[in-house]
Amino acid sequence: MALTMATEIRHMKWWGWGYEDVTFDDSNKPGLWPYLARELEVDEIEWTKPVSFEDVELPRQNLNEEFLKGIKEALKDDQIVEDKKARLIHAAGKSFRDLWRLRHGKVRHAPDFVVFPESEKDVVTLVRAAHEHGVVLIPFGGGSNIAGCLEPRDSGGRMVVSLDMCRMHEVLEVDQRSLIARVQPGVYGQHLEDQLAGHGVTLGHFPDSFLHSTLGGWAATRSAGMQSDRYGKIEDMIVSLRMVTPTGTIATRTVPKSSNGIDVRHLCIGSEGILGVITEVAVQVHRKPTHEDWYGWLFPDFESGVKAIHECQRHDCMPTVTRLNDPKKTALSFAFKAPKSGFKEAIGKAVKWYIGNIKGIDFKSCCLMVVKFEGDYDSFHMRRREVSAIYRRRGGVCLGAEPGRSFARAKFDFPHLRDYVMDRNIMADVSETATTWSNLLKLHENGMAAVNQAIRDTGVAPWCGCHVSHSYHTGASLYFTFGCRQRPSREIEQYLYVKKAAEDAFLENGGTLSHHHAVGTEHLPWVEADISATGIRAVQALKDGLDPHGIMNPGKIIPPKDPLNAWGLGEDAIRQLVDSSQ
Amino acid sequence: MALTMATEIRHMKWWGWGYEDVTFDDSNKPGLWPYLARELEVDEIEWTKPVSFEDVELPRQNLNEEFLKGIKEALKDDQIVEDKKARLIHAAGKSFRDLWRLRHGKVRHAPDFVVFPESEKDVVTLVRAAHEHGVVLIPFGGGSNIAGCLEPRDSGGRMVVSLDMCRMHEVLEVDQRSLIARVQPGVYGQHLEDQLAGHGVTLGHFPDSFLHSTLGGWAATRSAGMQSDRYGKIEDMIVSLRMVTPTGTIATRTVPKSSNGIDVRHLCIGSEGILGVITEVAVQVHRKPTHEDWYGWLFPDFESGVKAIHECQRHDCMPTVTRLNDPKKTALSFAFKAPKSGFKEAIGKAVKWYIGNIKGIDFKSCCLMVVKFEGDYDSFHMRRREVSAIYRRRGGVCLGAEPGRSFARAKFDFPHLRDYVMDRNIMADVSETATTWSNLLKLHENGMAAVNQAIRDTGVAPWCGCHVSHSYHTGASLYFTFGCRQRPSREIEQYLYVKKAAEDAFLENGGTLSHHHAVGTEHLPWVEADISATGIRAVQALKDGLDPHGIMNPGKIIPPKDPLNAWGLGEDAIRQLVDSSQ
Repeated sequence: MALTMATEIRHMKWWGWGYEDVTFDDSNKPGLWPYLARELEVDEIEWTKPVSFEDVELPRQNLNEEFLKGIKEALKDDQIVEDKKARLIHAAGKSFRDLWRLRHGKVRHAPDFVVFPESEKDVVTLVRAAHEHGVVLIPFGGGSNIAGCLEPRDSGGRMVVSLDMCRMHEVLEVDQRSLIARVQPGVYGQHLEDQLAGHGVTLGHFPDSFLHSTLGGWAATRSAGMQSDRYGKIEDMIVSLRMVTPTGTIATRTVPKSSNGIDVRHLCIGSEGILGVITEVAVQVHRKPTHEDWYGWLFPDFESGVKAIHECQRHDCMPTVTRLNDPKKTALSFAFKAPKSGFKEAIGKAVKWYIGNIKGIDFKSCCLMVVKFEGDYDSFHMRRREVSAIYRRRGGVCLGAEPGRSFARAKFDFPHLRDYVMDRNIMADVSETATTWSNLLKLHENGMAAVNQAIRDTGVAPWCGCHVSHSYHTGASLYFTFGCRQRPSREIEQYLYVKKAAEDAFLENGGTLSHHHAVGTEHLPWVEADISATGIRAVQALKDGLDPHGIMNPGKIIPPKDPLNAWGLGEDAIRQLVDSSQ
Repeated sequence: MALTMATEIRHMKWWGWGYEDVTFDDSNKPGLWPYLARELEVDEIEWTKPVSFEDVELPRQNLNEEFLKGIKEALKDDQIVEDKKARLIHAAGKSFRDLWRLRHGKVRHAPDFVVFPESEKDVVTLVRAAHEHGVVLIPFGGGSNIAGCLEPRDSGGRMVVSLDMCRMHEVLEVDQRSLIARVQPGVYGQHLEDQLAGHGVTLGHFPDSFLHSTLGGWAATRSAGMQSDRYGKIEDMIVSLRMVTPTGTIATRTVPKSSNGIDVRHLCIGSEGILGVITEVAVQVHRKPTHEDWYGWLFPDFESGVKAIHECQRHDCMPTVTRLNDPKKTALSFAFKAPKSGFKEAIGKAVKWYIGNIKGIDFKSCCLMVVKFEGDYDSFHMRRREVSAIYRRRGGVCLGAEPGRSFARAKFDFPHLRDYVMDRNIMADVSETATTWSNLLKLHENGMAAVNQAIRDTGVAPWCGCHVSHSYHTGASLYFTFGCRQRPSREIEQYLYVKKAAEDAFLENGGTLSHHHAVGTEHLPWVEADISATGIRAVQALKDGLDPHGIMNPGKIIPPKDPLNAWGLGEDAIRQLVDSSQ
């Protein structure tokens, strides 16, 4: 088995999204900044670029010599790394707080070492040594998490080691008859699909973070990809797994379904590193479809778009991808386009006239829907016909393939936008949820209102948009994106205040704390409302039983007492922030 | 909310399957006994009818007065029952061991009381009192479990109370837009579907035990119904639930999907009563299809039938029900039919000639497949056409609707057959599993060989047949039925020896210990092979955390040390049994 050296794995830049040499370029998006500046009432750009690498100071290393001695005997030299760049890259994920601190050089917590296991045996060695010597381990996939899952902090002051899984990246076996692939967890999305393509199959999991996230990370956080309507969430794809815990290795059998008591697979999925390290995953895969294409549709308003998705669900005829933008998100999409892109062509003068006059679509309320169909020749065309008929009944107008293809080409670019606005002193973040069809429109309306009001409370103009991108028999997801000018020296409180408004609105309106971004630290204040105090007790029981010394990713999933204060937003902070905004 | 009195709920007969006034009648099945007698080499029937109710002696009641005092203050008189009939009915499920002991009047364990909670509040009262006073609770649904889940035994000698959930049987709410029904757990299958039908919806869950099992029981054991290919297993249907544990009530949110850490829903599903009592379940439901019908097909052999199902999976076009009998099970089906049934008509002389001569089907190897299609007019016919084309390519011959309808009419009758053969000194049981498509034929072959050989080892002629009734993208279930003449005074060892052979073969050939019958006590020796020792540790951690006094259904799921001896089949017993059969 060929193992790639650490240097060949390309981590993201330490202060933002994407590779070091990739920057978000707005030169072919002349409408973007004017749109944002107008919406956010920015007269003049206040540049807030990240500090330079040299100016970042890391906390002093906290060394557990016995642990280091033990692992140095078992591992190769290049598996144990302590240089500043590695420690900085592994110091955080990509949550707003993570990025804000990194960009300001305020790195209060960083792992003392980074280790790169190359086999389950290495992982067992590391977990055992950590368990024995009291060292904290933070499993690290692609580092893309935006919920604080990677925070390398230990309240007990122990040495903290980041366990970067990137060298365990092989597809070990593809069972062509059963369509099951046995895969190591550290594989990045593109590398996984490249290997699977060699076997003629696909996993079908394409989260926005695809280029910079791993199978193990997806499993540990219950990730969802944009093709979930066809392929499911990651928890629906996992047939079996192996997870190394401080007290032994959990291994489940590769069978389609079972009645073997409590499904221990589901104790590992979503465990966010607090119980152990996932070392192998068997996933169901699918033959590559022969036909696929993307399309854009325009709906007169959000409600008609939601009803169209709902009706597709009721007729069991979902596209592979369905992404409905609300009016604000639609406007942002328009602003995002190149001036002469096919997208704008597609809704050129004649079409505009038709849409605006004949169909009575109001451009202020209209909503862009991007869909993808796939299958063999027959099923591709049949599904497209069925869905199109439903969309038309709901007032949808097809814009042709180009707006869809344009989305597909840029589908992994969106996360770059945050660095772009953070350079310009804009706070931007996302909060997403899922709820039943009955609650969906109410939650959208109340969620938008809550976020907009919260931003206004902080004294600045709000932008908030939302899209639906995962739907189910019983409901769908709602993905809110929001931004505003930052309040000087209150940036974190301002973010927390808005984030709290979003999450409170979710829980008050029948949603969950997150549909696919994990609990981490950012969602701790809402866990009890989501799974009940006794549910937390159950998770704590697992933690106590499998990780009695508490070495695995402490501080995640299980909320502390008074979680809102621990989170950083006590009553006092709120009052001061709002008072100062009057 | 109208509550039905205990007396209106009809429990099954204490010694076998079905209502007291329903007996299995072979008068219109003249071929059945001759077939069985020939296969099992029975020259003359040895009648082994159950002892009379009067001759059954129950163990003396073990009373915890403080517990009884507490619950008598909180509950109505008719909620607390201690008569012999109630204790006997709640003394066991319907596993072979359960029935053999009951039929022989050897009731070593029975609950000391039976209580009938009518609300979650009642359940909380009971669980708290039991937790406080050290009383063991055994949650009881329909009493149909065949894996020993209901064994009312406590190794600590505490009072044991059966918690019969049958009075909590209401559909509380149906959300028509989200297609979610909120339901109490004690509802029996037929009553549930009757209530849902009033709302125009169906759950689509029809296990063989449908008439005598409950939603809560299905959830606690990860049940599967015959329509699982369309509607999923019960764990796929449950959107949220509530479970009362000794340390509090777990409540999850009714949302389609979430990323809220470890999915605590899945800690409750499959917990078989060892953590708490499920008190409410929200399930996804479906609009009643307008068209449905059943069909019979004949395949030249088991392999071609399996390949046909596999191909349907690969084309995403499964019928609602697919039930493929292997040759032995097919022969039993033929023997089961009425002499002039439409089924026999359907394969009358002309068809027989055609099948036997033109298609080259050998009646010794041919396999009956029963399928059901449903949907609206278009989807019903389209699916039927697609599936039929695949079946024909695999050598299948359609027998028309009658064989399918005949199966549908008798679909809940099959479990009665065991009482019929046990009356005739025949041991009969089932063991079922699931495995990947790659392992399926191998497991079928080796499973059959293992069971047949094990029965022969006990000195008698074997009968073993198998069917596939649940299939998935990655694999399918295999459901083995076996029987033989009983070895006098070694009936239990003989059963255990054969059962062990089946389960060993499952685990050795890539299967799981059970696809939908639970662990209970009967499958304890295979839990470690199925979920690993650390998996068991995880379940134990949950148990310790949520039920620290160990009052909830002790002895299930978590195997003891040396589980095979505890199960009743040590090396000595095996040697003696086999030696005495030479």
